[in-house]
Amino acid sequence: MRRWISIAAALAAFSPATASPTSVDEWDVLAGEALANQIRYHYTNPEASSTCSPFTASVRREWGVLSQKERRNYIDAVLCLSTKPPKSDPSFAPGVRSRYDDFVAVHINQTMFIHGTGNFLTWHRYFVWAYEQALRTECGYTGTQPYWAWNKYTDDPANSPIFDGSEYSMSGDGAFVPHNATEAAPGILLKPSNGGGCVQSGPFKNFTVNLGPVFPSLKIPGLVAQKGSGLNYNPRCLRRDISKEAAQWTTTKQVVDLISNETDIWDYETTMQGDFPRGFLGLHSGGHYTIGGDPGGDFYTSPGDPAFFLHHAAIDRAFWNWQNLDPVNRTYVVNGPTVLAGVELPSRNTTLDDIVDMSSALAPPKTIRELLDTTGGTGGPFCYIYL
Amino acid sequence: MRRWISIAAALAAFSPATASPTSVDEWDVLAGEALANQIRYHYTNPEASSTCSPFTASVRREWGVLSQKERRNYIDAVLCLSTKPPKSDPSFAPGVRSRYDDFVAVHINQTMFIHGTGNFLTWHRYFVWAYEQALRTECGYTGTQPYWAWNKYTDDPANSPIFDGSEYSMSGDGAFVPHNATEAAPGILLKPSNGGGCVQSGPFKNFTVNLGPVFPSLKIPGLVAQKGSGLNYNPRCLRRDISKEAAQWTTTKQVVDLISNETDIWDYETTMQGDFPRGFLGLHSGGHYTIGGDPGGDFYTSPGDPAFFLHHAAIDRAFWNWQNLDPVNRTYVVNGPTVLAGVELPSRNTTLDDIVDMSSALAPPKTIRELLDTTGGTGGPFCYIYL
Repeated sequence: MRRWISIAAALAAFSPATASPTSVDEWDVLAGEALANQIRYHYTNPEASSTCSPFTASVRREWGVLSQKERRNYIDAVLCLSTKPPKSDPSFAPGVRSRYDDFVAVHINQTMFIHGTGNFLTWHRYFVWAYEQALRTECGYTGTQPYWAWNKYTDDPANSPIFDGSEYSMSGDGAFVPHNATEAAPGILLKPSNGGGCVQSGPFKNFTVNLGPVFPSLKIPGLVAQKGSGLNYNPRCLRRDISKEAAQWTTTKQVVDLISNETDIWDYETTMQGDFPRGFLGLHSGGHYTIGGDPGGDFYTSPGDPAFFLHHAAIDRAFWNWQNLDPVNRTYVVNGPTVLAGVELPSRNTTLDDIVDMSSALAPPKTIRELLDTTGGTGGPFCYIYL
Repeated sequence: MRRWISIAAALAAFSPATASPTSVDEWDVLAGEALANQIRYHYTNPEASSTCSPFTASVRREWGVLSQKERRNYIDAVLCLSTKPPKSDPSFAPGVRSRYDDFVAVHINQTMFIHGTGNFLTWHRYFVWAYEQALRTECGYTGTQPYWAWNKYTDDPANSPIFDGSEYSMSGDGAFVPHNATEAAPGILLKPSNGGGCVQSGPFKNFTVNLGPVFPSLKIPGLVAQKGSGLNYNPRCLRRDISKEAAQWTTTKQVVDLISNETDIWDYETTMQGDFPRGFLGLHSGGHYTIGGDPGGDFYTSPGDPAFFLHHAAIDRAFWNWQNLDPVNRTYVVNGPTVLAGVELPSRNTTLDDIVDMSSALAPPKTIRELLDTTGGTGGPFCYIYL
């Protein structure tokens, strides 16, 4: 993959600090290469899906390039999901009050087995897809899951099309409430930013967070972890503390370095998820703590902020991009433990045959192998690409 | 561009005679490369559009990958256009009876100045775009102009998703009427095929052709050229004579050879339009005479068959693909006379500053330069890509 590295290096000279949503950046260039490679892989791989190809696939696009109407269609579908009755078994998650909460509950429940683990990338890919499916089949959404290209807005995320508080955004920052620093990862403190309180503007102004907190990083009075599983009913407002400091972990350089320099799935996934002892937050936590607040900054409950799904679609675009820079060697790869390091449970190495079972309320069980090709390889459920 | 040639050669080993609409072929692989290059060009070109990029652009897709609903939406918009009143000045085209006819009339009127000429590729690009705009703004169409990847159906075009006669097709073949050979180009005769009569099936079964014929190639009794301009009223049925023989000029090998081997705009455009004295029909005529009939096989009146626009979108995809295999050197290129060879009118060489004025009823005048970048370079009107 030396060729892509040299292209990335050559392009770096043109890179502005923050690109507008309509401008092309280095990550976009790499995504174009990835798509071309995925098409070629589909053509030359005798085992490629015959029912899905990059040409029949749906196209996931960046929030900033969507029209106002397209953004609003997505927002309305999310709001719809939050008004639909839940499907979870009440004995599993007594606090769920909506179909939206079903997703939050499953993430809370499995947190220790889907972070810092070999299934992290495929589990979250499947989770975002299941959510996209629910928006489509249960709320009439006809678009695709948008992603948040963090790198385009790192100078001022609170004024980005995603968080500017307009009716076409995912709502704005929280009201300012004095608060202490956020511990984004063990030993990595982020200065408190301009929010901390309830979201005041945009479509999710009155959005209710029903579950958690489990591991609240936002330091405001009264916000304390639930006793037990975090799956009990605890309605409260959606709070944010949008952080420019966290956003510095998601610059174009950070993204392109990750995708271009890491050639092994283990190196890729660990760099992406952060190397906390040496103070490296990484893309994944960087995006989460750019949102911050409650539950956005809660390791367990973070899907309770609807921006979660735009963030994790971007995590998935980066993985898709990394895979398709060398699809022959990077499509069917997995590595890492099955349990988060530090949890006192037996762990082994993840395999392609491991089952991703995120609850029948969300999607049927699949093997990791089935979740590695976004265009239907090995009979997998996906049929999408990224632009 | 030696690199692309070698990729094409390497891929040729995998190429089936006719691919299914959902399978990826060599042309698709080259189109993926083209898109990646266009993205990189947009990133590295300081003069690239700031309002359109490959990421904000609309995506034109192949007819066969559209859903039935998407196909039907397109068909219904075309039928809608054929019921809207015309905008042409009656003194220019007394025979027009619909908005659809406006497009046919302009093509008839300019035939000698838009074929075998330097403006051929940009004129037809703009023409198809103006039609797509009319479908959208005047008939509520929300999709994009589909294209017909001829190469996927060369073994049996009459049973392709485009011409299979279903309600989701562009209608089927004509009824069989005994007829003589078609002269597809001077000295190039195509055997009569299984049609020749009125289209019997599908959405355009009762479609009326109002203008022409001017240069009918279909040899059936009573079909004779109008006197004069061809712009008078002459209602008749839509006839087809779908030809496998003509389709052999549009195989994957023909398309890929053209795009990969020609490195100069003059060579590209002349090979694409055919070298008739040596019996080489070329992609352009190959596609037209795969449809055949009246007016599909009429050099002047061919847009009167609605499949024209799928054919010319494919001609445009091939040009877009050729341009974007080397966008730095191939975006702003033009060559060729301004009048068809053999017409006794003064001609000079086409320049980038020449105006494409296809009639104010269709679209405003633009320079050829403005029509060469499909993603808005030099302030041009376009914002689309192909998948």
